[in-house]
Amino acid sequence: MIDIIFMGGLVVFSISSLYFFFNRHKPEGLNTAFLVSFVTIASYVLMWDGFFAVESPAGQPIFWSRWLFYVVSCSLLMLEIGRAKGITSTGKVAELVFLNTIVMVTGTVSAVTSGWTKWLFFAISAIAYLILIIPLLRVRDGDSNWIDKYILLGWSGFPVVFFLAPTGIGLFGSAVAMGLYLLLDIYTKIAFNLQLKA
Amino acid sequence: MIDIIFMGGLVVFSISSLYFFFNRHKPEGLNTAFLVSFVTIASYVLMWDGFFAVESPAGQPIFWSRWLFYVVSCSLLMLEIGRAKGITSTGKVAELVFLNTIVMVTGTVSAVTSGWTKWLFFAISAIAYLILIIPLLRVRDGDSNWIDKYILLGWSGFPVVFFLAPTGIGLFGSAVAMGLYLLLDIYTKIAFNLQLKA
Amino acid sequence: MIDIIFMGGLVVFSISSLYFFFNRHKPEGLNTAFLVSFVTIASYVLMWDGFFAVESPAGQPIFWSRWLFYVVSCSLLMLEIGRAKGITSTGKVAELVFLNTIVMVTGTVSAVTSGWTKWLFFAISAIAYLILIIPLLRVRDGDSNWIDKYILLGWSGFPVVFFLAPTGIGLFGSAVAMGLYLLLDIYTKIAFNLQLKA
Repeated sequence: MIDIIFMGGLVVFSISSLYFFFNRHKPEGLNTAFLVSFVTIASYVLMWDGFFAVESPAGQPIFWSRWLFYVVSCSLLMLEIGRAKGITSTGKVAELVFLNTIVMVTGTVSAVTSGWTKWLFFAISAIAYLILIIPLLRVRDGDSNWIDKYILLGWSGFPVVFFLAPTGIGLFGSAVAMGLYLLLDIYTKIAFNLQLKA
Repeated sequence: MIDIIFMGGLVVFSISSLYFFFNRHKPEGLNTAFLVSFVTIASYVLMWDGFFAVESPAGQPIFWSRWLFYVVSCSLLMLEIGRAKGITSTGKVAELVFLNTIVMVTGTVSAVTSGWTKWLFFAISAIAYLILIIPLLRVRDGDSNWIDKYILLGWSGFPVVFFLAPTGIGLFGSAVAMGLYLLLDIYTKIAFNLQLKA
Repeated sequence: MIDIIFMGGLVVFSISSLYFFFNRHKPEGLNTAFLVSFVTIASYVLMWDGFFAVESPAGQPIFWSRWLFYVVSCSLLMLEIGRAKGITSTGKVAELVFLNTIVMVTGTVSAVTSGWTKWLFFAISAIAYLILIIPLLRVRDGDSNWIDKYILLGWSGFPVVFFLAPTGIGLFGSAVAMGLYLLLDIYTKIAFNLQLKA
């Protein structure tokens, strides 16, 4: 089941990579939409292989490499969100990228540890996430409020799944978590970029 | 004993994180003082957990993850030092950040290896450190000479402790090393930022 | 034999580090030529030590840490190539650095995995490499066409060796691969920078 989800992610992000490669948002500069999809292909291939997966205390596979790929892909999304929100200060954009890196790296540590270390790192990751998104949601720019929907519904879905999955309290198994992450990936990385282009 | 030091670091840097979060140096841009303290919390939690610690040939624990966190926190301090020293060339600031990354990554390799590889990487790290700080100490900017004290007494304390600790010749044990690092962390990451704000 | 090659690399890049340190291309800014050689010393020392080497299914040593050092050194070369090609868009230069990082990290994963994962990551790395160099070769700037020779003969040599070495189909052993990589390193990191300075 997990294998089918990973294969699905591979196919979906291969198609979106091709689409965004040939349909650039801007003729010049970083083709962010393509790069995000392209990095996500690599993430799915690596999870499918299972090379870096570890086992949770309850015997469920933890595909922690996902969170390191998000350092790259979500930092790119931060550049897009910052631009769409009209944030022109380089320092402010650097802060978004930096906080995203902290969220993802501490999340990775939370995923592979257990006990109170897991929960302390989860807390640090969550705090960094709140510091990241609250000022972002406060930026009221006339044309960019549609982005808040992606942040609240999409981005915030990841820590919720993380908390309920074997990386957290283990309410459901890794297969369900991987399916939910795939939907969130499609929503925040493909649907978002399609609307950004539109 | 080591646990108490790590807990102490966790408490101290949690307080400084809160302080710098609510007392920004500048209203705009990267809140470096806060981010440095916040990253250091994560570093102390991970060392406290001991998840990534390895054992030295003499049986002492080596908490090498510290040096990877310094890639981030000390790069942020480089941005501050560069700005305080009046270095405006982006290339020059990038060189400081890049050299700091080399110092810390080669230091990490030195910490986890042994024999002549340890000492070669220690030498590379030390050379990169000298290349980093000598031009920095040479910048004579009227208002920023107080920073040299932090570089000479604070920053340079780290390689000395590293050399004397189980990561080097093992003159003293890991507990003493961790206590000294904590004092150096407080001096270079909290006292420095308090004086920078003042 | 492999040890002699690594020692040779260490000696050659120590000399080139010294040379470029005392013969800066530009008085101001990042001394890229020196930093590339300096990082390469660290890479050769680590391979010489063999600390991180893994074994291929055929029993050959895989020195995968090389590719992670290329993230740094080749990103610096990208800055130089971008400048020499007259690419002034920061976004475009960031794309070069970013694509190079994808090439090297996915190449590292390809080196340490086996079976179809190895080949999928090799394919992703190769695609990222083509996306990187094809637009670069298309930039026809009067004075910079000599660079194309380095890209086509030098840079493109690495994936060819990777494919034929134990990281790929294993046509020849690790010693031959290390010797070829050393020649390519000298060509793309020393000869290139000497011509750039000239």
